[in-house]
Amino acid sequence: MMLNKEKAYIAGFLDGDGCILFQLIRKSDYRLGFQVKASVIFYQNKKYRWFLLWLKEKLKYGYIRDRNDDICEYNIVGFKAVEEVLGALYPYLRIKHDQAKLALGIIKKYPHNGRDYSPEMLMKIAKDIDGFSFLNYSKKRTITSRTVKKHLVKSKLLSP
Amino acid sequence: MMLNKEKAYIAGFLDGDGCILFQLIRKSDYRLGFQVKASVIFYQNKKYRWFLLWLKEKLKYGYIRDRNDDICEYNIVGFKAVEEVLGALYPYLRIKHDQAKLALGIIKKYPHNGRDYSPEMLMKIAKDIDGFSFLNYSKKRTITSRTVKKHLVKSKLLSP
Repeated sequence: MMLNKEKAYIAGFLDGDGCILFQLIRKSDYRLGFQVKASVIFYQNKKYRWFLLWLKEKLKYGYIRDRNDDICEYNIVGFKAVEEVLGALYPYLRIKHDQAKLALGIIKKYPHNGRDYSPEMLMKIAKDIDGFSFLNYSKKRTITSRTVKKHLVKSKLLSP
Repeated sequence: MMLNKEKAYIAGFLDGDGCILFQLIRKSDYRLGFQVKASVIFYQNKKYRWFLLWLKEKLKYGYIRDRNDDICEYNIVGFKAVEEVLGALYPYLRIKHDQAKLALGIIKKYPHNGRDYSPEMLMKIAKDIDGFSFLNYSKKRTITSRTVKKHLVKSKLLSP
């Protein structure tokens, strides 16, 4: 169990240096061609790896990944994991408060296993993710609901 | 008064995105030629200016400065202000815990008004700041205790 002061501390850290992300990822082995990925990510210089280990001990979910550069990542991936983590930190967040609220809303609206989505449902969540990413000021997004729609129509899974 | 959960939150934010700094600054109107400046700084994109305003309301000290780029700075400057702020956040810090402890130690060791320093005392604090900045991994430092010594010897304020 996390103490309230630990939740508050981690919320402050997430506001300062963390990232809440929804991504549409191409997956050739998925029936609809895309995976919907939700994640909370913390980055730190490798010399603070011990800190990310402490964070993981507190938040339970996710894994730590050493990149090829000086950076170490702590990734919390998946609807259930992100829901649990943001659910705990949400009341303490400030800068990312609205973002977390929106993320929790999207997670609640759809089945957690993306393989169960109908083409129509995938289009709906893809549009929600467009909205979320707009709030998130993500500039590097290449796959949007538009990309998904093109693919679904081309694959005759959705009528234009 | 700050609540404990607010202190914990701000400590998390400082660990993620804040900066504790000691600087030796050339001042031609100072008897010894240098000012010793302590600061705690928070940077944010200008769209989160409201957040820095909230932070200042909580921490009381300091001022907010809009830079020419997209960034807004909240600067807490001076021995007394930094001592008060770090004193409150210190028990909750993790990544910057040792740094804050060292900063508080330096602040306690010397008079708060740098104009009262003897040349010997300025040299001592300059060396302490070298040590602090080493821990801080500051790479852009140009004025170190060496610079101060050179100046003091050249000005015949200190024997070589």
